[in-house]
Amino acid sequence: MSTSPLSLDEIYVLAREALLGAGASAEHADAVAHVVTQAERDGSHSHGLFRIPGYVASLRSGKVNGDADPKLSKVSPVVLHCDGDLGYAPLAHRRSLDSLAKAAKENGVATLSVTRTHHFAALWPETEALGHQGLVAIACVSYMPSVAPFGATEALYGTNPLSFAWPRPASPPLVFDMATAAMAMGDVQIAARDGHPVPAGTGLDANGELTTDPKEIIKGVLLPFGGYKGSHIAMMIELLAGPLVGETVSFTSKSRDRGDGGPPQGGEFILAMNPDLLSGSEWPNQSEAFLAKLGALEGVRLPAERRYRNRQDTGPRQINSDLLERITSNR
Amino acid sequence: MSTSPLSLDEIYVLAREALLGAGASAEHADAVAHVVTQAERDGSHSHGLFRIPGYVASLRSGKVNGDADPKLSKVSPVVLHCDGDLGYAPLAHRRSLDSLAKAAKENGVATLSVTRTHHFAALWPETEALGHQGLVAIACVSYMPSVAPFGATEALYGTNPLSFAWPRPASPPLVFDMATAAMAMGDVQIAARDGHPVPAGTGLDANGELTTDPKEIIKGVLLPFGGYKGSHIAMMIELLAGPLVGETVSFTSKSRDRGDGGPPQGGEFILAMNPDLLSGSEWPNQSEAFLAKLGALEGVRLPAERRYRNRQDTGPRQINSDLLERITSNR
Repeated sequence: MSTSPLSLDEIYVLAREALLGAGASAEHADAVAHVVTQAERDGSHSHGLFRIPGYVASLRSGKVNGDADPKLSKVSPVVLHCDGDLGYAPLAHRRSLDSLAKAAKENGVATLSVTRTHHFAALWPETEALGHQGLVAIACVSYMPSVAPFGATEALYGTNPLSFAWPRPASPPLVFDMATAAMAMGDVQIAARDGHPVPAGTGLDANGELTTDPKEIIKGVLLPFGGYKGSHIAMMIELLAGPLVGETVSFTSKSRDRGDGGPPQGGEFILAMNPDLLSGSEWPNQSEAFLAKLGALEGVRLPAERRYRNRQDTGPRQINSDLLERITSNR
Repeated sequence: MSTSPLSLDEIYVLAREALLGAGASAEHADAVAHVVTQAERDGSHSHGLFRIPGYVASLRSGKVNGDADPKLSKVSPVVLHCDGDLGYAPLAHRRSLDSLAKAAKENGVATLSVTRTHHFAALWPETEALGHQGLVAIACVSYMPSVAPFGATEALYGTNPLSFAWPRPASPPLVFDMATAAMAMGDVQIAARDGHPVPAGTGLDANGELTTDPKEIIKGVLLPFGGYKGSHIAMMIELLAGPLVGETVSFTSKSRDRGDGGPPQGGEFILAMNPDLLSGSEWPNQSEAFLAKLGALEGVRLPAERRYRNRQDTGPRQINSDLLERITSNR
């Protein structure tokens, strides 16, 4: 696999230019390029430049509004709603997350219902930002149906990621961000591109049989992680990121999508809580003692450790040359 | 295995008398016996009379305050706190859940931090009750360390159950309630008692090796469900049901426990949300269409279906005779 080195600034510029070229407003191009660059910075390639062709295609098809004007409103002091105006999610976040944090800090708990957006990024940018403000955060989205509920062979759930952030007094938040599919579709696509098999249990082929060939899974269906329990978590996310916020579940997202390779329209649920109000002053000591004990166990790695370590490297990133060619030739 | 038939009323009286005999106040004995009877009614044997010896032992050892006076306070309009006064959790719930529901209905979202209680029951009684009030509910507790984080061989997490309820307009709420251990310790104990093996992946023996013998797992350690992803969920529950509400994590619960077989002191996190405020009027149509599609898939069973079906049977329940003997002789 041939790669080319790009600095983080070059990655940002490449992403921004591609988005501007496809009709995104300057504000959207900046917000999305920022999220893409953060992903490459942290080594999350499946949410980095790899996403740009899909972003571009869904702007070009007219599905995504490149000039969308996301609007935040308050239903109650603790229930916020952001109408994404059919644009990409990062600008909706920029206009909402500080208000969500303020509401959670003042009242102890607050929710943000994000609707009519197209979410094509990781979730940790949202939860980590809230964690840096001293808040506990949970976020989830649903997506195109690609995961069969436990026991079934037909896709009904999206890969339905769930992210959680826990604030830490002397270090960046503890954050996990994981698909509730056995593997994220982005990672299956990368395995297919690079010709690697995936672990058994990742998915079924078009005939409903287990396979380790990512190309067959792309034609078939993913499985939830962890059997029926993971399937319950995926179901919960369908309901939280869909009907609870006033948006559709995965299968209705698909029915109104244009199949352009970009993300469907969908919702996002974000919850923020202030441990100073829910608890007392002891929580940082309690959680730090727990995390110290967890991190010291042989064989255990705290989530996000690798991302935070990658982040320390300010040097160039190795970008897949075919991907670079695809992005630049498509401008 | 010999069993004896008991009516639900007889189960309630048996549980109540055992608790009164061990020093529980009339209010606590009623609240706990009610929860135990609900479990037997629904076929959840591991949370039914099976728990009574542990309830009795922890009252007799003086660990649990049989005369506890749980007190509800409001930190903000949406953050409630219930100090359990070192008693059992069901009375704390009785004194708190309606106020939590009211706060969530009025404001859209509210939390309940339950501290200084001993939780020895399922979580669905809490979440289902909130679901019946038209609310989305999430509840979790941590417990004695018995589960090794993914990659480790040493117990740090409790079996850390998570329950979720989603309100339905024309039927009881959709509810799941599951241990984030591969199997609940109560079920491992019942398998050990009845001499059944458990599935591979349930736990490790005292040497850190995989085993299907429940007796060996009781001496060793359980595993989380679903590998590292299930382990992340278990970790999140440690933090939510512990430091977030002002209580300890599993391993500190153990360090102050008396080893009497009853539940350690711990916390519970309960979240309630009003979909009418977070969403709009469309949510019941959206979620019912989704649940109809899910329930119609071949091989899929909606969670709680079996419990709701068992509930229709008002006849006697078959109770393990050794257990009955143990409860009655211990009075």
